[in-house]
Amino acid sequence: MKQLLGVTVALGLGLVATSAMAADKIKIGVSIPAATHGWAGGLNWHAQEAEKDLEKAYPDLDFIIVTAKNPTEQANDLEDLVSVQNIDALVILPFESDPLTIPVQQVKEAGKFITVVDRGLSQPGIEDVYVAGNNSALGAQAGEYLKKRLDGKGKIVVLRGLPTTVDDERVEAFNASIKGSDIEVLDMKYANWNRDDGYEVMQDFLSRFPKIDAVWAQDDDIALGVIEAIKQADRTDEMFVIGGGGMKDIIKRVKDGDKLTPIDVLYPPAMIATAMGITALKFETKAAVEGRYILGATTVTPENADKFYFPDSPY
Amino acid sequence: MKQLLGVTVALGLGLVATSAMAADKIKIGVSIPAATHGWAGGLNWHAQEAEKDLEKAYPDLDFIIVTAKNPTEQANDLEDLVSVQNIDALVILPFESDPLTIPVQQVKEAGKFITVVDRGLSQPGIEDVYVAGNNSALGAQAGEYLKKRLDGKGKIVVLRGLPTTVDDERVEAFNASIKGSDIEVLDMKYANWNRDDGYEVMQDFLSRFPKIDAVWAQDDDIALGVIEAIKQADRTDEMFVIGGGGMKDIIKRVKDGDKLTPIDVLYPPAMIATAMGITALKFETKAAVEGRYILGATTVTPENADKFYFPDSPY
Repeated sequence: MKQLLGVTVALGLGLVATSAMAADKIKIGVSIPAATHGWAGGLNWHAQEAEKDLEKAYPDLDFIIVTAKNPTEQANDLEDLVSVQNIDALVILPFESDPLTIPVQQVKEAGKFITVVDRGLSQPGIEDVYVAGNNSALGAQAGEYLKKRLDGKGKIVVLRGLPTTVDDERVEAFNASIKGSDIEVLDMKYANWNRDDGYEVMQDFLSRFPKIDAVWAQDDDIALGVIEAIKQADRTDEMFVIGGGGMKDIIKRVKDGDKLTPIDVLYPPAMIATAMGITALKFETKAAVEGRYILGATTVTPENADKFYFPDSPY
Repeated sequence: MKQLLGVTVALGLGLVATSAMAADKIKIGVSIPAATHGWAGGLNWHAQEAEKDLEKAYPDLDFIIVTAKNPTEQANDLEDLVSVQNIDALVILPFESDPLTIPVQQVKEAGKFITVVDRGLSQPGIEDVYVAGNNSALGAQAGEYLKKRLDGKGKIVVLRGLPTTVDDERVEAFNASIKGSDIEVLDMKYANWNRDDGYEVMQDFLSRFPKIDAVWAQDDDIALGVIEAIKQADRTDEMFVIGGGGMKDIIKRVKDGDKLTPIDVLYPPAMIATAMGITALKFETKAAVEGRYILGATTVTPENADKFYFPDSPY
């Protein structure tokens, strides 16, 4: 009887201790678009990896990752994170800027620390931290490499993404970087950041232009379609392709020294890990973290590709 | 005898294990100007605090903080960090841009990851990560508060720092933020980011202007001198003072609701902790960290002052 009582008391104490510990944890909500493949798939994978890495480093942190299929679902997630989970901070990559601006503002007004990733909100000053890639640098890096590699002269084709500010920034910076050289852009066409469209647009380019020195595909999904078209046309020795993003299939080719894809330029889904790590610093150190973090568009070469190759990631 | 042998073997194994562990540690050199007081004193304190916090989170990290009294000493420190300590990464706040550019470039060429803090190097593209405060935002925040607080009209005086780009950026943004209002700047004078000069310049202003609504001192050291002059002139009820930086004496006054210093604007020495934390993320997570981190000039009010008050720091 005494022994049983002892066990009960111990169990009781155990429960109390566990719930007290759970209550003491610092909760950081992470709200991102759901996806199993492509760039957003990589985003999901990197969020989960960062959760593991950071919770190991900081046992009093509890990351709560929620994924949404559309802006409405994401807005509902934010409500739950505040009212049910009682988070201390929110890390969010908004599905779209406009429909998420007010919901994020409400989380801010509830006194939570806010980190916004990649897509900015429609109103300035809501977030404490902003983490984003650099579209201009992505275009400029690709242009600089191309200019150097072609010795300032040659014929190229360009595949654009979707008509958005992201695409405009990339293309403007690319154009600026090759300005004044003898590089001739034979044509530019939208390929919608899509592999199939990349394939079709490139087929058209290949049929129209007998000599192409290089392709700026600006995106790794587009690049995969482009590579397929070039291989089918049996013109792999004639040109090379520069993508963008940091997809593992492309990084692997760069790493292996594939001549068709000599480099890649990063726009890394791992930026979600950066945002989570910086938000963790806010609670775990005395670091000043409020600010804007614009990631560089690192050029991936055979020499450094190892550092940016994540074979387990879906992207 | 057997027992003694056992002890010896155990000790031997212990030694092997310890040195193997030390060799496995990731070494991050932190090179900063030496100081026991002022902003640089705060920098030293925050570097040491970050070392404690981050080495606790990541037991395989070893931060090596070295402090220098001049640019030559700092350049020598870098050589030692590479050749003697064999660091994996360098976090540096350069004494001056020009004399440290080549030494940092040499560390980069030795294959080390480079994080530069606050003062940029004279040549772009050397560092992997750049962390800095935002001088324009510091001026703009002060101007916006002043305009709102004075209802868009009133007479103010401005104390500048030293004739440098840092000072120019602050003052240009301040002027832009009050442009179009009825705020009259009675005079602007250099006070060299120095308490004694702040006192002298403010004494002059007080003797020349019978009515002053507010003082933009732009810096907390200058602000301390200004406050002293105002108190001696017994005109504390007439005006308020806005400094800048985040000195604990000023933050404490803001926290306590002192009417003479209603707010402060941050240019935090804790940015060294941010830089160390981001560099740690590079080695401990899969986060993409190469990029530029520009900290905001957070406005410190009685409501949030607690978060930015470090009573143990010298600054």
